[in-house]
Amino acid sequence: MKYSLERSYEILDRTPAVLQALLSGLPDDWVMPNEGPETFSPYDVIGHLVHGEKTDWVVRAKMILEFGNTKTFERYDRFAQYEESKGKSLQQLLDEFTVIRKENMIWFKALNLTEDDLDRQGMHPVLGDVTLRNLLATWVVHDLTHIAQITRVMAKQYKEEMGPWPEFFRILNF
Amino acid sequence: MKYSLERSYEILDRTPAVLQALLSGLPDDWVMPNEGPETFSPYDVIGHLVHGEKTDWVVRAKMILEFGNTKTFERYDRFAQYEESKGKSLQQLLDEFTVIRKENMIWFKALNLTEDDLDRQGMHPVLGDVTLRNLLATWVVHDLTHIAQITRVMAKQYKEEMGPWPEFFRILNF
Repeated sequence: MKYSLERSYEILDRTPAVLQALLSGLPDDWVMPNEGPETFSPYDVIGHLVHGEKTDWVVRAKMILEFGNTKTFERYDRFAQYEESKGKSLQQLLDEFTVIRKENMIWFKALNLTEDDLDRQGMHPVLGDVTLRNLLATWVVHDLTHIAQITRVMAKQYKEEMGPWPEFFRILNF
Repeated sequence: MKYSLERSYEILDRTPAVLQALLSGLPDDWVMPNEGPETFSPYDVIGHLVHGEKTDWVVRAKMILEFGNTKTFERYDRFAQYEESKGKSLQQLLDEFTVIRKENMIWFKALNLTEDDLDRQGMHPVLGDVTLRNLLATWVVHDLTHIAQITRVMAKQYKEEMGPWPEFFRILNF
């Protein structure tokens, strides 16, 4: 599928509601376990998404529009939420994500980007040359794959209770 | 995590709202592609979940409670939805799932199962001996892993638009 603004809005706009429906009100048993060292719990993922809204997607899009590939993106800190989420409840993080995503979408839609804009180049500190289109498609994929991760991590909590059934669930070994 | 009725209700009750938030109103571009032959599109998954509510979880739980392991479960048809969903819109399937899951949860909660009930044995046509606890834990995991599948399949639609970014997304190669 080709990237289009409309198709990307359809996902980015709905992610906060999906995460609220999926996680709001759940006890720690469901939201605090992870998949092992340096992996994320559902709680960690929401903090990571908040951090991304503040420091990654919009900041990098602005850099491309202003400086093209003459200025390299800051490295993204995948573990920033371990500090930044401290003392915050899951619901606080979900609500924070809902607010900041909404603000970011208002900004994003107001840009009225053209196809030429989407071809503009940026410089990633590890990946090198990227386009604004690549960045914006990755923003969408990042939402979707983190929802996949959250539900996979939750599913694994019951693996031991399934008796022989896990053999039918390849995803539990991911 | 140990299986408990309360923890399982928390997931099973919310799945219809999660799926509505995730998929309602999306165009075919997002919901009709799959991952290759004999794999499911998001649209297929919702039909599969409807079929499961009608023929799998509740039917098998009733068999365990009535016949124990003296009667073997019917084989589950993983591809039934290809026929049963024909002519139905995604929204029709989402609404059908919402209604039947709600009915099934009313039935499930009214059982007031004890720990002894959860230990009761059933007979799976492929896996052999299972317990009611195994079946009910698998019902929860089945919901969660299909949400993971839906979001993974959707994410893959933009893989070609991400430039060099897919290398950071291991899940896109699942």
